[in-house]
Amino acid sequence: MRNIKLEIEYDGTNYYGWQVQNSPRPTAHGPQKRTIQQTIESALQKILQEKVKLICSGRTDTGVHAKAQIANFKTKSLIDLVKLHLSLNALLPEDVVVNKAVQVPDDFHSRFSVKSKIYRYIIFNNSHRSVLSRDFVYFCRYPLNLEIMRSEAKSFLGRHDFSSFCASAGLAKNPVKTIKKIAISKRKDLIYIDIEGNGFLYNMVRNIVGTLIDAGRGRLSRHACKKILIAKNRRLAGATAPAKGLYLLKVKYK
Amino acid sequence: MRNIKLEIEYDGTNYYGWQVQNSPRPTAHGPQKRTIQQTIESALQKILQEKVKLICSGRTDTGVHAKAQIANFKTKSLIDLVKLHLSLNALLPEDVVVNKAVQVPDDFHSRFSVKSKIYRYIIFNNSHRSVLSRDFVYFCRYPLNLEIMRSEAKSFLGRHDFSSFCASAGLAKNPVKTIKKIAISKRKDLIYIDIEGNGFLYNMVRNIVGTLIDAGRGRLSRHACKKILIAKNRRLAGATAPAKGLYLLKVKYK
Repeated sequence: MRNIKLEIEYDGTNYYGWQVQNSPRPTAHGPQKRTIQQTIESALQKILQEKVKLICSGRTDTGVHAKAQIANFKTKSLIDLVKLHLSLNALLPEDVVVNKAVQVPDDFHSRFSVKSKIYRYIIFNNSHRSVLSRDFVYFCRYPLNLEIMRSEAKSFLGRHDFSSFCASAGLAKNPVKTIKKIAISKRKDLIYIDIEGNGFLYNMVRNIVGTLIDAGRGRLSRHACKKILIAKNRRLAGATAPAKGLYLLKVKYK
Repeated sequence: MRNIKLEIEYDGTNYYGWQVQNSPRPTAHGPQKRTIQQTIESALQKILQEKVKLICSGRTDTGVHAKAQIANFKTKSLIDLVKLHLSLNALLPEDVVVNKAVQVPDDFHSRFSVKSKIYRYIIFNNSHRSVLSRDFVYFCRYPLNLEIMRSEAKSFLGRHDFSSFCASAGLAKNPVKTIKKIAISKRKDLIYIDIEGNGFLYNMVRNIVGTLIDAGRGRLSRHACKKILIAKNRRLAGATAPAKGLYLLKVKYK
């Protein structure tokens, strides 16, 4: 069996995330959304004439995007990798593309081998909404104070119990995660929040961002993030920032 | 009468351009697309309780975007400009936004007062298609040689008869235009072609870009652009580059 690793970019707008996490309600409006995993697995099956199972670095939620999601699958097929890569992109819809396809050692596992992951959240911070990037940024009309946000963000660095920032539906066995880096930068109207960690709870990045936005708006007292972390109480943190501003940017491996 | 000037940003994807240029065919698939002009005029009418006519710096075609289209209208209304601005953006759909609304002298005319306009064309130049920006760039899978493109682009600088680069449907009374500047730059996978001129014929920017792409792919002999210009024959120039990569970036006034 060969072990093939894919680097995948997607626009999550029209998908139930990588894989359905909570059973989506049946919808009366149009066809049910698919998942990224289904979409790629069915393209692979057509090409390889074999059912394969894609394992990703970590599932992304409904509406979340990826610049470089990593996934691998095992196959008996001897297909040439360049041919596989081109065929995949020819079959995939316009909102999913495979940017790399390489063979990796047998013991490579997209999830278990992860060292860290970097998520990026993009806020469009202007009094008027964004038009050209509206599906890919979160519009915040209130001026955000970056110095306060950077200062509050420091509380998240290191190893902590992130229960306060975990969606109740996703309470994990182990809510302790390590955040290695948080960088907040600004270019014109766009604020980028890049968070690197060894793992993330369900909605954790979006809850951290929602809380940092509250801080940036001046709605929290000093050291609020530290206090919220210690309290281990989801109700104290800010609102979950919308999915459309979130990107899985990079996955680092051991 | 007050004379009000608007700076407007729009995603042209779902519009028949600023104003219908060639009568669009009735479509059996869903509702007919609107125009940007209609959309803004009808919002203005609701706010001002008065019919107004918007004059723009120059119509953009179906599917073309604008970062800063300029338009003005005259009104008897004494409405506060901040209120007008906020109300407009509240009524406008998510793909159109007004970024500025100011009162200007009575003799300001969005089209007649133009000194020059800058258009930007964005090419995504990679072997794999773009996903996250797919509606806003033109995907070219063939490697483009920027040096050749820059060298060919020089032929367009100055005052020329641009008949070779004008769509036959739009043959103008005066095909002589002056191009002040063409800058071709690259950032990662994106190639930006910025063209500043005192005026543009129908499809002129997209025909110039299509020809420069041919040159960049090595499909044209040296000085081809100069020869095509002199020939005044549309059939010699390259294909019209798709609308979705084109932006009206800036309008300069006297």
